[in-house]
Formats: sequence, C-alpha cells, structure tokens
Amino acid sequence: MANQKKMVEDITSMEEDFAQWYTDIVKKAELIEYTSVKGCMVIRPYGYAIWENIQKNLDAMFKKTGHENVCMPMFIPESLLQKEKDHVEGFAPEVAWVTHGGSEKLEDRLCVRPTSETLFCEHYANIIQSYRDLPKLYNQWVSVVRWEKTTRPFLRSREFLWQEGHTIHETAQEAIEETERMLNVYAEFCEDYLAMPVVKGRKTDSDKFAGAEATYAIEALMHDGKALQAGTSHYFGDGFARAFGIQFQSRENKLEYPFQTSWGVTTRLIGAIIMTHGDDNGLVLPPRVAPIQAVIIPVAMHKPGVKEKAAELKAMLENDFRVKLDDSDNSPGWKYSEYEMKGVPVRIEIGPRDIENNQCVIVTRHTREKTIVSLDNLKEEVAKKLEEVQKGIYERALENREKRTYACKTMDEIVATLNEKGDGFIKAMWCGDEECEDIVKEKTGVGSRCIPFDQESFSDVCVCCGKPAKHMVYWGKAY
Amino acid sequence: MANQKKMVEDITSMEEDFAQWYTDIVKKAELIEYTSVKGCMVIRPYGYAIWENIQKNLDAMFKKTGHENVCMPMFIPESLLQKEKDHVEGFAPEVAWVTHGGSEKLEDRLCVRPTSETLFCEHYANIIQSYRDLPKLYNQWVSVVRWEKTTRPFLRSREFLWQEGHTIHETAQEAIEETERMLNVYAEFCEDYLAMPVVKGRKTDSDKFAGAEATYAIEALMHDGKALQAGTSHYFGDGFARAFGIQFQSRENKLEYPFQTSWGVTTRLIGAIIMTHGDDNGLVLPPRVAPIQAVIIPVAMHKPGVKEKAAELKAMLENDFRVKLDDSDNSPGWKYSEYEMKGVPVRIEIGPRDIENNQCVIVTRHTREKTIVSLDNLKEEVAKKLEEVQKGIYERALENREKRTYACKTMDEIVATLNEKGDGFIKAMWCGDEECEDIVKEKTGVGSRCIPFDQESFSDVCVCCGKPAKHMVYWGKAY
Repeated sequence: MANQKKMVEDITSMEEDFAQWYTDIVKKAELIEYTSVKGCMVIRPYGYAIWENIQKNLDAMFKKTGHENVCMPMFIPESLLQKEKDHVEGFAPEVAWVTHGGSEKLEDRLCVRPTSETLFCEHYANIIQSYRDLPKLYNQWVSVVRWEKTTRPFLRSREFLWQEGHTIHETAQEAIEETERMLNVYAEFCEDYLAMPVVKGRKTDSDKFAGAEATYAIEALMHDGKALQAGTSHYFGDGFARAFGIQFQSRENKLEYPFQTSWGVTTRLIGAIIMTHGDDNGLVLPPRVAPIQAVIIPVAMHKPGVKEKAAELKAMLENDFRVKLDDSDNSPGWKYSEYEMKGVPVRIEIGPRDIENNQCVIVTRHTREKTIVSLDNLKEEVAKKLEEVQKGIYERALENREKRTYACKTMDEIVATLNEKGDGFIKAMWCGDEECEDIVKEKTGVGSRCIPFDQESFSDVCVCCGKPAKHMVYWGKAY
Repeated sequence: MANQKKMVEDITSMEEDFAQWYTDIVKKAELIEYTSVKGCMVIRPYGYAIWENIQKNLDAMFKKTGHENVCMPMFIPESLLQKEKDHVEGFAPEVAWVTHGGSEKLEDRLCVRPTSETLFCEHYANIIQSYRDLPKLYNQWVSVVRWEKTTRPFLRSREFLWQEGHTIHETAQEAIEETERMLNVYAEFCEDYLAMPVVKGRKTDSDKFAGAEATYAIEALMHDGKALQAGTSHYFGDGFARAFGIQFQSRENKLEYPFQTSWGVTTRLIGAIIMTHGDDNGLVLPPRVAPIQAVIIPVAMHKPGVKEKAAELKAMLENDFRVKLDDSDNSPGWKYSEYEMKGVPVRIEIGPRDIENNQCVIVTRHTREKTIVSLDNLKEEVAKKLEEVQKGIYERALENREKRTYACKTMDEIVATLNEKGDGFIKAMWCGDEECEDIVKEKTGVGSRCIPFDQESFSDVCVCCGKPAKHMVYWGKAY
C-alpha cells in the first residue's frame, strides 16, 4: 500500500536539526497545514482537539475562580487604540489595518485586535458606575492578529488563538492578588495538565507588556535548552482607567479610578508540549490533553475473533477514556509508528495468543515499555498507565530542566557554560539596571527571562557591573 | 436604593413597538452592549452564556454525526476569494479589506472571512489525494464579518459568531445526504433545545447561497409574524472542486472531482429565542440553554434561618441544575422583576412560613403560575417544572405559528389576509418562475421563504400567473 511507508523515517532527528524536527512533527502528526495566507495556518482536527482539551480544562479553572466569558468585537478603531500612549506605541507597528468596508473607504481605520485592553476599557467605562459593579472578572476565547515578520507554527504566527482575561477591581491590592492568582492558575495548569514544569516570576521593566505596571510570566525550558514564555499576567494599576475615563463611586462616595489586570495563554502551548515532551519518534502527548489517550491495535486481524475482541475492548474503555480502535488494512507495524508519531500515550495490542490468555499488551509512549495485563482489570490498568505517562513525562521534563540550569557568577562563566553545555537557563545576579541587562544580552547572547518568585542568592554582586545585586534572574535564549 | 427601580417599567410593550421591545430586552437583560465599532457589539456574560450552551449542545450533535473541528485563518487573499465566480460576486461587495500590515502595504489585499468555503477548498486541494481520504467532515466555531449597512443586535451585525461546517465527499449522493442530515440536526436542535418550531425546506434559486447548487433552510415564525431564517445547509455539487482543482483518485483509479457541502447557524439564534418566547415582562429562556435555570429568592431575609435555608436549597440543587441564589439587599419584588426580565425559567421563593411547613413556592416564568412544593422532593419538582417550561413554550410557539399561517389562492387574498390579520406565513402555490416570485414580492410585500419538504396542494395553479403550479411555497416578511 502506498500509505504504508514508515512515517518515522521522514522525521529529522532532534540532534541533527531541532528546528526541522519541530517542523516535521507539526506536519506529519497532522497538527497544522500551511495556507496561502502568509504566517497563518490551518489547525487540523488532531491539533485543534488538543486546543479543545486545553480550553475545556482551563475554562473550568477560570470559572471556578469566578470568571465569566464575554465576546468583544475583533476590530478596534484607530482612535480608540490611541487612547493609552504606551499601549499604542507597543502594538501599532504590528497590527493589520482594515481600511475599506465593501467599496467604501473608512473614515477611522480599524485594526484587527492584537489584544483587547482598549475594547474592555471602553466597555467598562459604559457599565461601571459604583463600587457595587466591581469587580468584573471577564475572559474571552478568540483569535488575535500581530503582523510578525518571521513566523513558525504555534510559536509565532500572524493569527493565533488565545484567551484573554480582563478584570477590573476596587483596589490595587485586589488587582495585584488577581494578577498573581491567574499566574498560579497557569502554572498549575501547565504542570498538572501539560506535565510541563514552569518557573514563575516577574518580567524586567524592559520586557513588560505595553501599558502594564508589572508583567508576571511562567517560563518553561524546551528540549533544546531554549526558554519559552508559556503565559503572562499583567497588573495595570489605574493607568488604563485614567486614559479611558473609567470611574466609580466609592464606598466613601467619592469618584475613584479602578485597577485592572489582563492575562493570557495561547496556542503556543501546543508548541511547548511538542518541544517539552517530543522525541525522535514524534510527538509525546500528556494524557490529560491528548485527543486519543489509548489506541487499540489488533494483531493478526485475519484470525477469527481478533477484530471482534478489539471492538469489545473499545466498548469496555470508551466511556472512561478517549479511545480509538484502528482496524484499518495497514500493518500493525505501520500503525505502531503512526500512533507513536501522533504521541498517543498508551497503545493496546491484542492478538490471537493474547485472546487465548485473556490478556493484552500495553505500551507506554514515553518509554515504549511493554506490560502484559489481564483483560479482567483492563480499565484500571489503562488508568494506571495513563497516570504513569502523565507523571513520567513531567519528571523527565523537570530533570531536563534541572540538568540544564546553571548558576553563573561572571559573564565569562556564562559564556563558557553556554559553549560547553549548550543552551539552558542561566541563573545570575543582577543590579536592576537596564544597561547591565542589555550588556549581558549583547555579550553572552542570553536575555533576561524573569525574576523568579523563588529567589536564591549565590553572589552579592551584579554579574555585569559588580555593583550590589538586587535580584537573581533567569536568563536564556527564547522562542 | 437607586438600583431598585422596577426594570420592567422601562420595557416598551410588544404591542406598542415590537422593534423597541426587542432593543429594550437585549440591553436590559444585559445580553449585549454597543461599542464604538459601528455594527459590532459586546456580547455580555449573560448573552454569551446562552451561546456557550448552544455551542456545547450543538457541538455534541456534530461530533455524534462524525464531524471534527478545525480552525482556518480569518483572512482570505483577494486572489483566492476570486476563484469561484458566483461566490466572489455574492460576497465581495460586503467584505472588510485589510490593506496594510503594520506600516507595510499588502500586495494582495486580504478580506476578513465572510464565510470560509475558499479556505476549506484550498486546504482540501492540499490534503486530498485518494478516495481513501474522503469524506472529510469538518466544522469550525469562529466569527465572520459582513459589511452590513443596517444592523441590529444578534439579527444582523457586521461581525457575528457562528459555526460553519464544510464537508467533502466521494459522490454527489453522499453530499446531498449530508446536506439534508445537517438540516435535520439544526431542526432537531431548534425544536428540542430552543423550543422553537421550524419549517424545513429548500430556498428558491433566487435565494441560494453564492456558489451553491441548492440551499436548504429552516424557517421560524417570530412573535410579530415575521419569519426568521434560523439555519442553512448548502449543496455545492462539484462546482467549488472544479474551481479550486480538488481531485482524487477514485476506486476505479480515475481522477475525479469530489462533492461538497457547507452549513451554518449563528448568534442570530439568540435573536430568534428572544422573539419566539419573550413577553412584556422580558426574556423567556428555554431551560436547556438558559444560563440560570432556577433562581432562589429568600423572602424576609432578616428573619432567622431564612438565608441559611436558601443556601441549603442551593446546595441541594446545584449539582443537577444551573442555579443561582440571590441573597443581595434588593427587595424580593425587585428580584422577581429582575429574573423575569432575564427569562430565568423557574423561580424558587422561600420564606419563614415556607420553612415552618417544609415547603417552598415555585413559579414558572412563562405562565407565572405558582406551585407549593415540599422540600422533600425539591429536585424532582424542579426537574418537572423545567420540563414543563421547555414543553410549554414550544407548544405556545407552535400554536402562534399555526394561528398565523394562512393558505391563499390568489394575490388579492394574500393582500387581504395580511391587511386583516397582520404578518405571518402565507402558503401559496407557485409555477417555479422567478418572475412570478418577484411579482408576488412587489405586489404583496412578502417574499418566498422556502419550498417546504412537507408539500401540500390546495390549488393547481400559480398564485401569480395562473399557469400550472409546481410547488407550494411559504412566503413572508423576514428578518
């Protein structure tokens, strides 16, 4: 059969060319397809199903923490975008402009939202009068557009899917707590669902969101030693409220400005999953978000009873797991490669000999380890194996990160470490001066990723200027 | 309290001004808010929660019928839009054009998708080689943009949310079956979930989707006697496949063109709910999609034990129903009006006397009928009442439609009926000639809505020209 070529032969190995390995996976695992719209892609059913699982679980966490979903327009009039000075400076250079509706030229150009702070602010100004109207804890699941020059599937595209939370509060304290709460929700989600360890911290001022007083982020380390910002949470103070004239009657009967936050994660998380867990055989998906958690593959399908037994197993499992039976004409070997490529966490093989012995073989994707289990307690065994994969890949990713995190006291040490060990997280002390930050970047090639909440101190002085250190910073090359 | 004005006093009555009644409801029930982006709106949490419930249930029906979700780019290059002649003629006059990305002028303008046939076709051309790749049963949940001149919340806006199914098949027969299957799914959903009776039928040629061979639709009758097209399903034949060069190797080893369909429903359904079930006290929501199915209102809250008992009821119900307890400072009377305005199907009142008697009062929204029920079987009673509302509002809507559907044999009869009875569905025979269709519209004011699948015959001749009739057609004024 023409389709029966071994798919894995077509993947470049990680070692050989990590970027090509990544591109091979997103295409061959059928996550995306390119389009004639430059920098935009089709997210195919298998890729979109991962996003649906991310969305479903994260949305439940948002609702549990009191948030409600809304939907804002996708367009922002140029005049509205311009109301907050830093914000427009940050975003205007990279937006798509709508200038015509039908054949009519628009008086006020519209940009396709790169983010929706301005629209939420306009709305808040309309609906908030009194402290009784606060807080508003809103979120939306939409796509946004940023006119990037260089694009890569999931990691950086001109259009991407995301959620953006926008909240508004009576006091600064409440808003700061919200900013931290949502960063924690993101960290919990990444660790518990995506099996991806993250570092929580604050961005340096040079890396803040346009218009924010403080930006918090979670940073993950990919398999190649590069960092990936997996989610951000911003505290705005009352800057946007002042720019947009949002005021409320306080408990003391005074007109006051409320305090705001915003926070978001994107389809980038799918890129993070690929580069955190994938291997030379393809994707490795965390069971909690895998579109197919277990695939059943009948062996020697022509033998009597095999197909029927495989269907029976499917029926046994399908109420509890996302399970697929592949009884197509392809060979078992081809199917093994196919579902390894697609990162299905657990494979169940069932053949005539197994049926005789009332058993089947379970193979876990991350270790390719085989276990023979009795059909009498298949459900429990599958649940156990999925848990094993979920934990196993988390631990492996954590180990990789620890192994590749290096504390350095001098710039020379940074350079030597990167040369010798390759990319990773560099921990180094910093005086807080933006100039030093720039010099580190220029001389070593690694930029500041975040000032982690968990601070350590292994030196009293800035790695760059030798003046007293204020923060321990994580540095690294980044996606 | 300033908030304690009776909200219902602010609604125009349906009788007085139906359009204003509609506008009052969407604003006061907090479904939408206007924005500075003309023709676009904010869908507020209460309105968006209705859409989320529509989406969740409809998506499950799509998946049950074998469909998968994907996500296409929101932009379509002008050159791609132009590939199918009828399609571009139909849509080009009403699209929004992106001409600049950042400060750079685009060579090929991009339109913001008004619908995505062209993108799906481009994708299919990329991924389909053989009959083994067919069918593809895809759907996406996104927003689209059409540059409408006159807009109304939910009914006609420049941006709206929808789902668009796009499928591609080996044979014409399969594609036609899919077109009909999805129309039936829509009809079932509207009747079972939205409690809205619909007429299933085919659009006349003058009303077909741009590029389709046949368009099927479901048509509902609103409270004011106007028709609303609630969903459409299109059969494309192989026209798009030919225009986009989509070919596959057939079972006979020949290169052939596949056959396509598309189908969609939009946030218009929320407008349909409002105008099918609403009354002079506000919204009336079908329990199956209501964000709040039951609201608990404590009476004489200052009396000992009342607040606690109300919280107890909430705890009893919240695992089975979407339930809200309102123990705010507002008066019970104000709350009654508020949740009637918001269309909550069931209200539960609990006061000191009720507690003494181990009972509560349940009020159904559509009839405002009170029933005293024992707290011992509250869950069963609430379930029963919700079912009563779901059925009751369906029957009421069906009755309204039957009462307002008139069979007419002559044009004069149509005019007289509309004058005497007001708007409604007119059933009249038609020869199939587009000219007659136009004359009926011009002389009576009603256009063809659809050629219903359930045909009747009460005359042998066309209502317009007197020649032999081919079809019985539903006519009406439409949203």
